[in-house]
Amino acid sequence: EILAAITATLGDGPLKGRHVLVTSGPTHEPIDPVRYIANRSSGAQGAALAAALRDLGARVSFVTGPASVPPPPGVEVHRVETAQQMLDAALAALPADAAICAAAVADWRVANAGAQKMKKGASGLPVLEFAENPDILATLSAHARRPALVVGFAAETETVEAHATAKRARKGCDWIVANDVSAHTGIMGGAENAVTLITEEGADPWPRLPKTEVARRLALRIAEAFA
Amino acid sequence: EILAAITATLGDGPLKGRHVLVTSGPTHEPIDPVRYIANRSSGAQGAALAAALRDLGARVSFVTGPASVPPPPGVEVHRVETAQQMLDAALAALPADAAICAAAVADWRVANAGAQKMKKGASGLPVLEFAENPDILATLSAHARRPALVVGFAAETETVEAHATAKRARKGCDWIVANDVSAHTGIMGGAENAVTLITEEGADPWPRLPKTEVARRLALRIAEAFA
Repeated sequence: EILAAITATLGDGPLKGRHVLVTSGPTHEPIDPVRYIANRSSGAQGAALAAALRDLGARVSFVTGPASVPPPPGVEVHRVETAQQMLDAALAALPADAAICAAAVADWRVANAGAQKMKKGASGLPVLEFAENPDILATLSAHARRPALVVGFAAETETVEAHATAKRARKGCDWIVANDVSAHTGIMGGAENAVTLITEEGADPWPRLPKTEVARRLALRIAEAFA
Repeated sequence: EILAAITATLGDGPLKGRHVLVTSGPTHEPIDPVRYIANRSSGAQGAALAAALRDLGARVSFVTGPASVPPPPGVEVHRVETAQQMLDAALAALPADAAICAAAVADWRVANAGAQKMKKGASGLPVLEFAENPDILATLSAHARRPALVVGFAAETETVEAHATAKRARKGCDWIVANDVSAHTGIMGGAENAVTLITEEGADPWPRLPKTEVARRLALRIAEAFA
């Protein structure tokens, strides 16, 4: 893979000269100094995408939460923990020709996160108050320096295509890569993905494929969009 | 380390013939199919303890949550995710001569965890209801088949010794290994630990040491208790 990175950097891939921002992995939202809210994203799909875009010659800014899969070589890695930090790092990476928001960003953070560890006490159970996190995909889609192509991911557990199509309209992005992350699919944390690509032309269901192959096909579609 | 495991199994360490239960790592408490509450325990101290006990000849039942450090070779590994599963696995491992509860167990689980992914919606923010998790240390300490020696850990962020001494009395365990997991100490997720051992004889603060050395000293203290 390091060889591929070097070859891509020296070569003349179809994305040569393009700058692509990729967000990846989960975010962690602190509850107190030791507890946090997480999600089951491994970062595998985002890392594979970054590698595939790099292989087509793109310069990749890779903004990653605490993923279990390491970032690929040959990309600019920006490590973050929370959704707010991810947004800050994404905006700092602009301008970009394309932004691929593959991260599984927490919708909410804990508004009353404590500086000390919460204790079991007479009061009994904790009361967590939530605040909405910034919406990275919508923010990039509406930004003054909006990338020409903005792609979001939609991890759903029911009525995937309908939810994802609505998400595309609501966020103002160009494409949505939708998938079913229900536990029975084994997709979140697994090696394969079964996605539906939703564009202005409609929904295109892809077969179940290794995440690396989903990444390669998506990177080629992105290259076509810039051809 | 594999050699150490083999040597220990064949050798005649001071804990030869003893069965020790070790719990280790964090627990994960589901919110919905993709989100969960976690904590920053890496499982490093628990894994080091299991290895040190094994090296002294003990048979080790190692009940571990989703840790970032792998379990040591030469121990019986039981993988769990939630506090309830950890309790079930710990009880299933009895009888044991000693139980070392090094896991960072979530005090609460989400009582209204959802079978579908929670959506951002008109309703706005989620309302999580919590239920108290079973207390593994207290349960083992009061159990009909109570191990002769029950050791708990207390991860604190303030007034460590006072909290830990109160915890020892409240839980009914024999020893408490207390440490300060405030972020500035770098202990949770780090390679070193600074513990205070609290027994019926009082509090004994140990110097800051590698977690492997804390494990070795604690294993030797346990061997002394059975000598």
